[in-house]
This record gives sequence, structure tokens and C-alpha cells, in this order.
Amino acid sequence: MSTVSLTPHAALRIDGARLWNSLMELAQIGATKKGGVCRLALTELDRQGRDFFVAQAKAAGCSIRIDSVGNIFARRAGLNNSLPAVMTGSHIDTQPTGGKFDGNYGVLAGLEVFKTLNDAGVTTAAPLEVVVWTNEEGSRFVPVMMGSGAFIGEFKTDFILAQKDRDGITVGQALHSIGYAGKDQVSPSGIGAYFEAHIEQGPVLEAHDITIGVVTGALGQRWFDVVITGSEAHAGPTPMSLRHDALLAASHVVQLINELALDHAPNARGTVGMLDVYPNSRNVIPGSVKLSVDLRADSDATLTAMVDKLNARAQEIAKQGKVSIALTQVVYFPPAAFASELVQAVRSGARTIGLSEMDVVSGAGHDAVYMARVAPTAMIFVPCKDGISHNEIEDAKSEHLEAGCNVLMHAMLACASQP
Amino acid sequence: MSTVSLTPHAALRIDGARLWNSLMELAQIGATKKGGVCRLALTELDRQGRDFFVAQAKAAGCSIRIDSVGNIFARRAGLNNSLPAVMTGSHIDTQPTGGKFDGNYGVLAGLEVFKTLNDAGVTTAAPLEVVVWTNEEGSRFVPVMMGSGAFIGEFKTDFILAQKDRDGITVGQALHSIGYAGKDQVSPSGIGAYFEAHIEQGPVLEAHDITIGVVTGALGQRWFDVVITGSEAHAGPTPMSLRHDALLAASHVVQLINELALDHAPNARGTVGMLDVYPNSRNVIPGSVKLSVDLRADSDATLTAMVDKLNARAQEIAKQGKVSIALTQVVYFPPAAFASELVQAVRSGARTIGLSEMDVVSGAGHDAVYMARVAPTAMIFVPCKDGISHNEIEDAKSEHLEAGCNVLMHAMLACASQP
Repeated sequence: MSTVSLTPHAALRIDGARLWNSLMELAQIGATKKGGVCRLALTELDRQGRDFFVAQAKAAGCSIRIDSVGNIFARRAGLNNSLPAVMTGSHIDTQPTGGKFDGNYGVLAGLEVFKTLNDAGVTTAAPLEVVVWTNEEGSRFVPVMMGSGAFIGEFKTDFILAQKDRDGITVGQALHSIGYAGKDQVSPSGIGAYFEAHIEQGPVLEAHDITIGVVTGALGQRWFDVVITGSEAHAGPTPMSLRHDALLAASHVVQLINELALDHAPNARGTVGMLDVYPNSRNVIPGSVKLSVDLRADSDATLTAMVDKLNARAQEIAKQGKVSIALTQVVYFPPAAFASELVQAVRSGARTIGLSEMDVVSGAGHDAVYMARVAPTAMIFVPCKDGISHNEIEDAKSEHLEAGCNVLMHAMLACASQP
Repeated sequence: MSTVSLTPHAALRIDGARLWNSLMELAQIGATKKGGVCRLALTELDRQGRDFFVAQAKAAGCSIRIDSVGNIFARRAGLNNSLPAVMTGSHIDTQPTGGKFDGNYGVLAGLEVFKTLNDAGVTTAAPLEVVVWTNEEGSRFVPVMMGSGAFIGEFKTDFILAQKDRDGITVGQALHSIGYAGKDQVSPSGIGAYFEAHIEQGPVLEAHDITIGVVTGALGQRWFDVVITGSEAHAGPTPMSLRHDALLAASHVVQLINELALDHAPNARGTVGMLDVYPNSRNVIPGSVKLSVDLRADSDATLTAMVDKLNARAQEIAKQGKVSIALTQVVYFPPAAFASELVQAVRSGARTIGLSEMDVVSGAGHDAVYMARVAPTAMIFVPCKDGISHNEIEDAKSEHLEAGCNVLMHAMLACASQP
């Protein structure tokens, strides 16, 4: 631990009930009958959610800035406002059948830290900020992680503002409609630290009965579209030896993808989530199959090795099955290694408070993955029930959410207390 | 060869051009832009097709009977009309994107035999009949092979007349609308022979460069619905070891079905034609998969062995993949062995004419499969281009259709010449 030290406020704790109530209040905006939330990016409901955040941030004494893609920055002044800010945040847009915690937790945990510091009369050396990133989910507008991606320069502002939803409405038009088309220039340089607290969205912490996931980085991703072309034919009259069965070949691809991940256990992932058969009729040998491949790994070297084997083996499967197989890469996210001193701040925070913790990697993308390219970054995971997310039944325990928020506070204090 | 002898008309040949022109004329009724035919059972187009058949049959001197499910019997009198009739026929309804030859060939080949016999002044000992079976395809009304199934007593007439299409129209109503609700009682007993000429709908004859398929029987069929239930989860955050991937398990089922057929080569078949993934999203581990299984074999013993292994291995796959697998049988057709003396009549016909021939089994269902339960039955296959059927690009060579019709005529003459 080089630049991060324990704070003089080791006994300070956030108000878990206040955090929970705040989450439940925000979850009313776009609440679904099944107990989830539908609050798509840049809709009237998103405006209400943003207004809720801004009102709470102002009540906590923050100044508000909104940039040109609608990201909201709520700043709590420090003793020396020329120091790089210590930031936290996440998003408040949801999937169409989303939950109450995904994203919302990271934003409201940040506000809860501010409220706690206010109550305790603590002013940090560096200023603190909570950011709400625009359209992390990508459900209404693509690309996903739009706001953080634009902020760090992955996407140009003009490109983002021109993106359209299914009804042809652009991001620019939608931002104007809801009153969040900002003009502030917020620089991605000189940020002291970025933390993001999030539900795990996976089953690892729950399986190990651990409260805090110390996230050491995020897996890189390479996604492919795969098209397998055989020949459709009658299932009855066509002997096995004369078939060109696209689904039989696809079954070998599905098993190959699983094998590629097992070859690089425990952190690699391989998933075929989508598979469409044509013509998809009981007594017709499938003539073609389209499927998706999602490969994830903790290093580019591993990802490359997985893809090399995929390409080679796919051609063997094609030859064996008398079909053709075409692969097209459609998504690439490089692996992100989080900043070791911030990861250590999270780990120390958990240990100081007496919480169980373990190192984990983030298998999913998060705004923090983009932020890691421009600032020291780390994430804090807390368990969610059965690992379920992007689902209306997404659930998390108040005590876990409270614990994660306490870790967030102490990690931020550790970084922001430097003179 | 016990009861079948060569006819005194060994040199007689049908008119290939007339047969082809008749096929092309019928194919105009419901012709599609892609060169196929859409003439669904009991529609106005089916009425036009039936009228075309009846007019040609009457012009050839036939008497017409129509039974209560709309099957049309065109009878050419023999020298001794108390002898059991020698029948041939097929169907003229098509798939929605069907071809010109499936079914239509068997019906018009029968009429061409009558025209040829008329031109040559031949009267057989036994009467001859050409039958048009109602709704073989099952595209508009289920069950498939409705007319022949009702005729042989597999289905009760009242059950058939009450079947509804998607718009709620019953078979009975549709028969009345098109004027083919007959009242004749046609007995399935005492039929001397039933022949059905058909395009192969598979690739075997073409692959072997053989003109005549001597069909020795039809494969039995057992179809299953299979539901695989795992747990859907995020592809990124969920380690391989904690997954319950329904599609991965399904891939093993697909390969098992292939293996079951290869275990009983060359006549067994195993096909997964339909497979649906839920929720079918790129980055979600599939929570459930529904798929169809179509098993076919030339004996019930083989079919049973295949199903026993399917049940046993499916439970191993389920255990290994931490999912559940449920199988439900939805279709059973027993294997049909055709009558050896009629099969020999087909073989002899081909050899007498000097055509290449080979024994084949019918992998698909045909009206002949039902007829085999009540009368000595055989089928004659001719090649179709690339084995393609149930498709607008279905195609066959005029010389092959002519050859098959000549074989049909000589097989019928052999059976009908007995005093």
C-alpha cells in the first residue's frame, strides 16, 4: 500500500436503513408488477429517476454538472479542490425487465457516503464526486455503457447523440426532451480514483458465503456470430450418410465453446446463448443454424488462444459434418486490470470493518471497465440472491448492501484523505 | 412369384409427354412465383385440382365415387367386376411451399395408365381404380394422411369431419364448401392390390444413378418432444462450474440422436429438426431448450432399442449437465412391410422394361403405409433432383417419371390380369 492509508475515521459507518429506503424509493419510478423496474435510458421515467438523484445530491450540498451526453456529476467539495476528485457512481437506467439494484445501488451508495460524511462533519482533502452514467444498459440505445464510453473518449459525442432507438428518436433528441442535454465539459484526466459498488450479478460470493467481492479486474470479451450452412432435407428419406446436418455440426460447436473455457479455468467463460435453427421443422434436417459465441478471459493472451483454437476446430467440425462454418467477430472488449492500490483499499476497508472478502473478477462489463482506462479504478461486489440480475426478481440483502457501502466509504476516504 | 405373372402386353408403354403435360397443367392450379405449388387441402384451389382430376378420369371412361371424407375413387371397369380392384393413387394437396410432383405424380401416373390402356384397347380382368386421398400433407388440417387413415379405419369419420384449421373451419364444412362431401361407402376390404408411385423425396436413387426404387416397406417412426430445464444466468459473471446450461445438455442430446441412428445403419434415422432456446440472448446462459426427436427404423425391435437407449442416456446427460430432461412421445407409426408379391411385381416390371432398379425403404410416411394394413401394397420411387421435396424447387426428370409410370402400369397389369 503506497499512496493509500487508513483514515482517521475507522469507526465511521453508513446508515444501512437510509440506503435501503433510498433504493426502495428510486425503485418506485418505473416499478413493475413483478417487483422489478423498467426505467429505460432517457425516457420520462429516467428523467424522474435523474431528478430524484439530483434533488438528493443537492440536499447533500453537492454542486451538479451535466455533460453533453447527459452524464450527471454531483460534487462534494474537499479541503483542497485542486486535488484530483475521488469518484464513485454507476447508472440508474434499467433493462426492460430489470431489477432494483443493478446500477442503482452504486449511485445511491455514493450518495449515502456523502450523507454519512455530512452527518459526521467530515471534509476530505480531495473533492468527492458521485456520477450517474447515461445508458449503461444499452436496452433502448446502443452502444451499451454509452455515457462512460463517451466520457473517456471511446465514442465521439456527435456519434452518440445521433444514435437512434427503434422509433427513430436520437439520443440528442431524447436528452433534450428530458432536460438533461448538458453543456458542461467534464475532463476525464486528473481523476484521483474511481470506485464502483455493484451487486455481483453472479453466484460466486453466495456460493462461498462471502460478503465483499474485491474485484481485481474485468474479463476481456470477444463475441462472434457463427453461421453454419448445410442442406435441409427430409428427415425420413435421407440416410444418415448423405446428410449435411447444420444442427449436428452446431452441437459440436456448442461443446467446443464449453471446452475452450474449461481449458482456461477458473476465470475463462464460453457461452452459446443464442441459437436459431432453419427451417426448424420436426421432420426436416436443419439446413442452417445461426448461433452466438461469447468468450471471456482475464488476459488477451488467453482470449487469443481461445479464438485460435475456435477457428481451427470449427473448420474440422465443418469438414467432418460436410457443412460450412463462418465466424464473424462482433464485439471486443480488452481485459481490464484494476489499480492495485485501489484494489488494496477495498480489501483493507473490508478487513478493517471485519467483513469476509475474497478476490473476484468481473465477468460482466461495467462503466468501471471504461473508467479504468483513464483513472485508477476498482470495484466492490456484494452478493445478490441466486446470482440473478437483469431480471425483475433480482434481489439483495440489506446487510450486504450496507456492508458494501461501508467498504466504499472507507476506500474513498483512504484515497481522498491525502493532502 | 406366386400369384403375379407377366402380362401379355409386355411391349406396352405409356406416353411420357402426355404425363408431363398433365403434371404441368395441374401445377398451374396454385402455382407459386418460385415455380412450386400451394394447394392446401379442401381449399378452392384443391377443388379446382379435384375437378381437373375428375374431368380427366371421366374422359377416360371412369366412374367416380366420393366417400364421406372426400377421397375420390375413379374406377375403370374390368372383365370381371366382382374381382377385387387393383388400385393406385396418391394425393393432390400440397405443402404451403410445395412442389409439382409430390402426390400429384402418383395420381396422374394412374390416369396415364388408364389412357394408355384405352388407346391400346386393353381391358383387364379385374377393375382398376385411381384414388385421390384427402389431405395427405396435414398442412391445413391434422392428422396427416387423413383420407387414407380414415379409409382404413385408423380414424373415425366423425373425428375427421370435426378437425379444425387455424380459422376454426372444420373438415366437414370445408368439404361441403368445395362440393366434395361424398356419401359413397367404399369398403377397404377385398382390395386386390394397392400401388403408389411417388418421387423418392430423398437422395438415394440419384446418388446411385438408379431409375426405379423398389420400395420394400416403410420405416416405423417414433417422435418425441424433449424439454431440457437448467437455469438461465449471466454469461459473464457465472463461472463454468456453477452453470446449469440447457443448451450444452441439448448438444449432447443432438449427438445422441445421431449416434442412435448410426448404431442401426443403414436404415435407421435420427433427426433433431426443431430446437428452441430460451431466453435466446447472446450473453445469457440458456435456461431451457425445447427440441424435437424423430427416430425411424425398419423394425419395431430396432425402434424400441433406440428409445431404450435414448431414455437411459438422456438421464445420464441430465445428471452430468445438472439439468432435467423430460421426454414425451408424440407420434408413433409402426414399420410397414410391403407385400412381397407386389414388391416383386414392381421389380419385374422394371427389369422387363430394362430399367435400373434397387431395393429401397420409404423413410417418409405415405398413404400406402396405411393401405398396407388392409391390402397387399407396394410403392415405386423415382429420383427427384437433389432429393429435394416439400419445396418449391422440387424437380424430377420427365424420363424418370415416364419410367416409373411404365413400371406402375406393368405391375398393375400383372395383378389385374388374373382371371
